[in-house]
Amino acid sequence: MAQHNAGDLRAQLVAVHPLIQNITNTVVQQFTANVLLAVGASPAMLDHEADAGQFAAMANALLINFGTASNQQLLAADAAMETARQRATPWVVDPVGIGATEFRSVRIRQAVARHPTVIRGNASEIMALADMGQGGRGVDTRDDVEAALPAAVTVARKTGAVIALSGARDAIVTALPDSIRIARVAGGHAYMPQVIGTGCSLGALIAAYLATGRQAFGAEGEQDFRATLAAHIHFSLAGHKAGEQAAGPGSFAVAFLDALHSLPAKAMDQTDVELDSRPLPSSHGACHE
Amino acid sequence: MAQHNAGDLRAQLVAVHPLIQNITNTVVQQFTANVLLAVGASPAMLDHEADAGQFAAMANALLINFGTASNQQLLAADAAMETARQRATPWVVDPVGIGATEFRSVRIRQAVARHPTVIRGNASEIMALADMGQGGRGVDTRDDVEAALPAAVTVARKTGAVIALSGARDAIVTALPDSIRIARVAGGHAYMPQVIGTGCSLGALIAAYLATGRQAFGAEGEQDFRATLAAHIHFSLAGHKAGEQAAGPGSFAVAFLDALHSLPAKAMDQTDVELDSRPLPSSHGACHE
Amino acid sequence: MAQHNAGDLRAQLVAVHPLIQNITNTVVQQFTANVLLAVGASPAMLDHEADAGQFAAMANALLINFGTASNQQLLAADAAMETARQRATPWVVDPVGIGATEFRSVRIRQAVARHPTVIRGNASEIMALADMGQGGRGVDTRDDVEAALPAAVTVARKTGAVIALSGARDAIVTALPDSIRIARVAGGHAYMPQVIGTGCSLGALIAAYLATGRQAFGAEGEQDFRATLAAHIHFSLAGHKAGEQAAGPGSFAVAFLDALHSLPAKAMDQTDVELDSRPLPSSHGACHE
Repeated sequence: MAQHNAGDLRAQLVAVHPLIQNITNTVVQQFTANVLLAVGASPAMLDHEADAGQFAAMANALLINFGTASNQQLLAADAAMETARQRATPWVVDPVGIGATEFRSVRIRQAVARHPTVIRGNASEIMALADMGQGGRGVDTRDDVEAALPAAVTVARKTGAVIALSGARDAIVTALPDSIRIARVAGGHAYMPQVIGTGCSLGALIAAYLATGRQAFGAEGEQDFRATLAAHIHFSLAGHKAGEQAAGPGSFAVAFLDALHSLPAKAMDQTDVELDSRPLPSSHGACHE
Repeated sequence: MAQHNAGDLRAQLVAVHPLIQNITNTVVQQFTANVLLAVGASPAMLDHEADAGQFAAMANALLINFGTASNQQLLAADAAMETARQRATPWVVDPVGIGATEFRSVRIRQAVARHPTVIRGNASEIMALADMGQGGRGVDTRDDVEAALPAAVTVARKTGAVIALSGARDAIVTALPDSIRIARVAGGHAYMPQVIGTGCSLGALIAAYLATGRQAFGAEGEQDFRATLAAHIHFSLAGHKAGEQAAGPGSFAVAFLDALHSLPAKAMDQTDVELDSRPLPSSHGACHE
Repeated sequence: MAQHNAGDLRAQLVAVHPLIQNITNTVVQQFTANVLLAVGASPAMLDHEADAGQFAAMANALLINFGTASNQQLLAADAAMETARQRATPWVVDPVGIGATEFRSVRIRQAVARHPTVIRGNASEIMALADMGQGGRGVDTRDDVEAALPAAVTVARKTGAVIALSGARDAIVTALPDSIRIARVAGGHAYMPQVIGTGCSLGALIAAYLATGRQAFGAEGEQDFRATLAAHIHFSLAGHKAGEQAAGPGSFAVAFLDALHSLPAKAMDQTDVELDSRPLPSSHGACHE
């Protein structure tokens, strides 16, 4: 693959204007919707079991996040994930809360077992998915992205999903038949983890890029990996720009939405991404799901 | 009627300080509450079936929006709408999501059949209510306000409600015994549809103006129409002012709340509104509800 | 006690980085999480009955607020409060909505009867808890802090909780064995009641300071009173600073998060607090709960 096609995807996103269904926690619904609107996507948050599955047939991509899941939302997610499977709609799982309690871990593992297109989380969450580490603690992460790479590789191979690991430097991991590909994106800003919903809304942005990539370039090859990478580049550059203007986390959140909106495709093309391909390791850690 | 009494109503809103009950979607609850507080109204969002009906007896107006309705919220809305009917409290329905799924369309049509004071939506939603067009798609609208005017007239005649059509230029429509009155309000800003909750919170602002108009001037004549118009003028002027200061949708949302708060009554009086009265058409499209 | 140890506590809060579980209304979840992140605490909002009690065992403090409680959230709160009792975890009740309806009043009184560490509310709410006054009206308060002091003393004696009374000048009240101690904190800003969630998120900040105080200085003596006072000083100074920069309630909310984040411990130490100790009155009003 070329280094990346993030600029192309960013331009296409506005043209495709994808409809993203978000079954996500109530804390971040507003911010997530604003992130999607800022970049040119169209958000929908309906989460009733009666029509979430039906609506998913119209959506171009789906995000699942059980941060404050109610029973009704859990049923809605089941229906929407089933529709996504039937229609081969790309979808993202955010495993927020895994490892915190058995109830939440079980539900998240059930979603992950349905073969999402992308799993996006912080280091602790991805390690918990791989039965390594101890899971998250609220919105914190206690583990480092690099330390979580073996866990990401394990989960990528087990599930077939692209793994998007968020941290001070993000890593996007995909398992090819005979190798592992890892892209690293630096940037962002220290205020980012001090604004609720930055991580969760990145999952929605990935969904928007997945939908765009599929519609503009098809699902072949590494398109989902590239789309996930493009979302991270968009997020990271906007975070960097917002950080330069912000006087604290409050003004950062405002400037971040502005920067997401105005970021030119050209800036995304010029971003350096560290790409790393390595042969598949001959042995790897067990992953009991 | 005089052109409008928006400035008077805006001054009265602060004096009346109406209590507005909002049974609305969780995505926009915070923004809606902030819009109401910014203009001098008092928001309440409780949505439990056990006391929503009882609380509605205290509220000066009610907003119903099923964007993320849970079963409990649907029951709460039933109780609150029944109280509003019994006490002749003005109330607003936002048909967000109509046409997206059968489940949602049925619930919205049931609410509309209870004779709300105002129905506020975008062109696609009003056309869906009139069984024209195809309904919305997430928060989008694919139809134009002017193209939706026949649908608005149909729904206005069928339900007796004032129809508030949101778009690049808003139209407020009411059916009088022998004529149709239409007011058009331009303004606002292109960032508005890129901020989640601007449409939904306009419904809450209409509720606040309805409550104010009823308390200050009674329910006679075209007062509800005037109140709906005043809310649109307030929104539009604040949006225009915010747009002049904003660097993107993030800073627009902030400046918009500031502008809603500081907008002087005088500025509202000086706003030009295009008023159009036409005889009732002798034939009109069917509206099966 | 020394006047107060607010500066020490503020510095410790960042070091302790307490995990605060918030079972709170959906309107203010985002703002509450952002307030906690801004000051260096870690928020968690999960509110499912299946694991809220289990999660509470990990949390350093708990906030309970039934503003938009669903049945599931009410059960989650029951479980979390029980865990807090068993583990002597400090917790805060915000009685928002008391007096509005019987259903809500009963649930709030049940929570208050479980002996929270702190009860934080406005004058109307504290008077309603003491069966004086008429309760709140949406987010309003119709009663004055000074007029509500007898109610606060009654509730403090009855429940053993520290009472945090919010208003133009806040009062923090605790009942010692033979006297009543009252601290008053002025400041804040007139925009504060025009931003949804400022009151509710103060409850979360109190929880963060309670957790910090307990971990850094133990639960002995008046530490919970001091922690509650420190939270009010932090809030008040940040509100004052934000008010100097704001052009309205929208920009106030942004500047407030920035100010909460950047406020130096030193500024908190230099704040004057009016401390008032009075002998326990020999007779006091009845409080039927």
